[in-house]
Amino acid sequence: SAQKAQMPLTAVTSVIDGLKRLYLEKLKPLEVAYRFNDFASPLLTSSDFDAKPMVMLLGQYSTGKTTFIKHLLKTSYPGAHVGPEPTTDRFVVVMSGPDGRTIPGNTIAVQADMPFTGLTTFGGAFLSKFECSQMPHPLLEHITFVDSPGVLSGEKQRTQRSYDFTGVTSWFAAKCDLILLLFDPHKLDISDEFKRVISSLRGHDDKIRVVLNKADQVDTQQLMRVYGALMWSLGKVLNTPEVVRVYIGSFNDKPVNETAVGPIGKDLFEREQDDLLCDLKDIPKKACDRQVNEFVKRARAAKIHAYIIGHLKKEMPAMMGKAKAQQRLIDNLEDEFAKVQREYHLPAGDFPDVEHFKQVLGGYNIDKFEKLKPKMVQAVDDMLAYDIPELLKNFKNPYE
Amino acid sequence: SAQKAQMPLTAVTSVIDGLKRLYLEKLKPLEVAYRFNDFASPLLTSSDFDAKPMVMLLGQYSTGKTTFIKHLLKTSYPGAHVGPEPTTDRFVVVMSGPDGRTIPGNTIAVQADMPFTGLTTFGGAFLSKFECSQMPHPLLEHITFVDSPGVLSGEKQRTQRSYDFTGVTSWFAAKCDLILLLFDPHKLDISDEFKRVISSLRGHDDKIRVVLNKADQVDTQQLMRVYGALMWSLGKVLNTPEVVRVYIGSFNDKPVNETAVGPIGKDLFEREQDDLLCDLKDIPKKACDRQVNEFVKRARAAKIHAYIIGHLKKEMPAMMGKAKAQQRLIDNLEDEFAKVQREYHLPAGDFPDVEHFKQVLGGYNIDKFEKLKPKMVQAVDDMLAYDIPELLKNFKNPYE
Ligand SMILES: Nc1ncnc2c1ncn2[C@@H]1O[C@H](COP(=O)(O)OP(=O)(O)OP(=O)(O)O)[C@@H](O)[C@H]1O
Ligand SMILES: Nc1ncnc2c1ncn2[C@@H]1O[C@H](COP(=O)(O)OP(=O)(O)OP(=O)(O)O)[C@@H](O)[C@H]1O
Ligand SMILES: [Mg+2]
Ligand SMILES: [Mg+2]
Repeated sequence: SAQKAQMPLTAVTSVIDGLKRLYLEKLKPLEVAYRFNDFASPLLTSSDFDAKPMVMLLGQYSTGKTTFIKHLLKTSYPGAHVGPEPTTDRFVVVMSGPDGRTIPGNTIAVQADMPFTGLTTFGGAFLSKFECSQMPHPLLEHITFVDSPGVLSGEKQRTQRSYDFTGVTSWFAAKCDLILLLFDPHKLDISDEFKRVISSLRGHDDKIRVVLNKADQVDTQQLMRVYGALMWSLGKVLNTPEVVRVYIGSFNDKPVNETAVGPIGKDLFEREQDDLLCDLKDIPKKACDRQVNEFVKRARAAKIHAYIIGHLKKEMPAMMGKAKAQQRLIDNLEDEFAKVQREYHLPAGDFPDVEHFKQVLGGYNIDKFEKLKPKMVQAVDDMLAYDIPELLKNFKNPYE
Repeated sequence: SAQKAQMPLTAVTSVIDGLKRLYLEKLKPLEVAYRFNDFASPLLTSSDFDAKPMVMLLGQYSTGKTTFIKHLLKTSYPGAHVGPEPTTDRFVVVMSGPDGRTIPGNTIAVQADMPFTGLTTFGGAFLSKFECSQMPHPLLEHITFVDSPGVLSGEKQRTQRSYDFTGVTSWFAAKCDLILLLFDPHKLDISDEFKRVISSLRGHDDKIRVVLNKADQVDTQQLMRVYGALMWSLGKVLNTPEVVRVYIGSFNDKPVNETAVGPIGKDLFEREQDDLLCDLKDIPKKACDRQVNEFVKRARAAKIHAYIIGHLKKEMPAMMGKAKAQQRLIDNLEDEFAKVQREYHLPAGDFPDVEHFKQVLGGYNIDKFEKLKPKMVQAVDDMLAYDIPELLKNFKNPYE
């Protein structure tokens, strides 16, 4: 089973390596030529491909977030603190590194090869509450964890945060592949700050899982009450028709407290814990699928972008009246899009937003654009039609 | 324990008997004299005092409603049908009677000594789907059960009801002391009709309890999923911040299926079943408390009503200009209320709705009203100050 688990992860790495190579050889040249980066999305860098799938842990203080990570790693991580009072006072990215050390947030946020430069927008007050914890570890080769400070409740709630807490959780939610909300039987309360945090995850509902931790601290009947009350309020707060998956168990190194929950409870918790571990093990594969998917979408968008630019360039007069022609093209951009759509048989829904495009276009001289180079487009078409399917075929089997 | 359980029920009967006597001797004369029945609420009849506390069962077909009642009675009731397909096709009131028999709805609804005359407003189509099942039974001496046809889901939903189903559930909800919503692990779905039924219970949320029946038909992990999903959707549908009490178990005569749920499950279900039985045993006492409470509220309202009528009568001129005076009093009724309030030091919130009072008053000749009779008011005051507390004191101890 250890043998079997090793294989897919190699394959994932290979698929990602393959994509990276295809990007440099076939897609990036087209993006650069027609300035896709200015109109749509920055050029991809190595760190965009290499970023490991991330799992974020959120929950009230002392629900066992830090302990959960330690439990999965089967060891502590540099800078980890565990205790009954609020202990973790910062966002900590726990990731793979050559040796065990912590790096301050300000340092990490300026490193272009790390996927955290976007966090600078949350300011110095946040960066001083942000930390990177590195260590060599087989699990961290494939997953990065984001530990977080306990969500506040009652009095403490808003006053003492010196930065935009829900802004940060929202930022991480977009980057993460899985978000675990931790509760324990004595901390079920979904405070106002917690509600705001959950709202900040909107659009990423499919990534949310709930952990009812320390479930062996109460007896079975109490556990049913606690669990019921949790589902009752989660249903209202998450507000999706699909029921969120809740894992009930005790995620630490101690054995399940059998005197409280009995053999059935122990059995249940162990099955639940296994299920969650499987879910976690599945992440790299799913993240890989998602990355391929995003990559294909990007390639299609870049192609359409090239067609548009090439078309606009072609519509410019050879000699006189260039300024007037440019203005006319911008004014009638919607019609021009329609022409491109018809000419190349493209789906209308795949076209970029006209208004945004107009705005960026205003800063350019259309006449200076490159003509459409069929060879470049052909390279991307080949990539979509042959290279990517080939890549997936070669590295597919190990998964299934 | 059987001895102990017997005592309170005698006491309940005695408290109710006492109230009935006090009503006839002291409160009713005041109500009649000042026509409280026309302005506020019909005179109470013997059946208003004698109606047993009622428990209504609602839920999808085959969730075990009829079986639940049979289980509590430890025997079947006349006309009961149990089966996997939809079986109960009518509302059945299961109550105490000299011998076992069923009485058709049309007959029951015209009996003035029964509390079901109000159901005639739902028409013949409903009355033909209404039935009274009587039998001598110690439990039915103290509780009346209302069995109901399964709530429909999917296609069947609205089309085939020939009467206002949710109107009927709403009517019973107002009369009932407890409403049990039954679910089973394979019938969790809250259909549109079920949603409407739950809406029809609004205002009686405190009476609602939920039963997750047949809980031994799935294993523990499945049960947790099922229970979680139930709470998730109930929280949204009931929409109260307080979590509804859910009893998890298997309410029939067969022993718990231990192979599915194990010894802990068995133990849990048995505790839950005991809790529900305690809740049911508590109903007669609670119903008695409520009846006393309602009676006291009614007495206060009748007294204020008498003060108002007496005041209006006093404001009428002895000889001339009666019509004009009546009109002036009606037009300024709010001010007159304020005068009464000040004169007798009454709480403003206890006064009746001015507009409704005006409307009824329009049909009367104020001059024909009785003058305020201090002796009558004194009788009610004495009843509130001495008789009722005495009644409660004499019959209080057996409960606690
Ligand atoms: N599964 C568990 N069962 C019992 N106790 C636990 C469990 N997990 C953690 N604990 C205990 O709960 C306390 C809080 O744990 P921990 O510091 O990991 O929580 P945290 O969520 O990271 O809190 P904070 O938000 O303050 O960082 C510690 O005393 C820890 O030993
Ligand atoms: N606790 C239980 N465990 C297992 N089976 C049960 C249980 N309670 C009832 N049943 C079975 O489920 C079926 C439906 O029971 P029952 O007729 O009491 O349901 P109902 O809710 O009254 O249905 P309807 O709405 O059609 O009247 C029957 O076959 C009965 O034997
Ligand atoms: Mg922590
Ligand atoms: Mg039935």
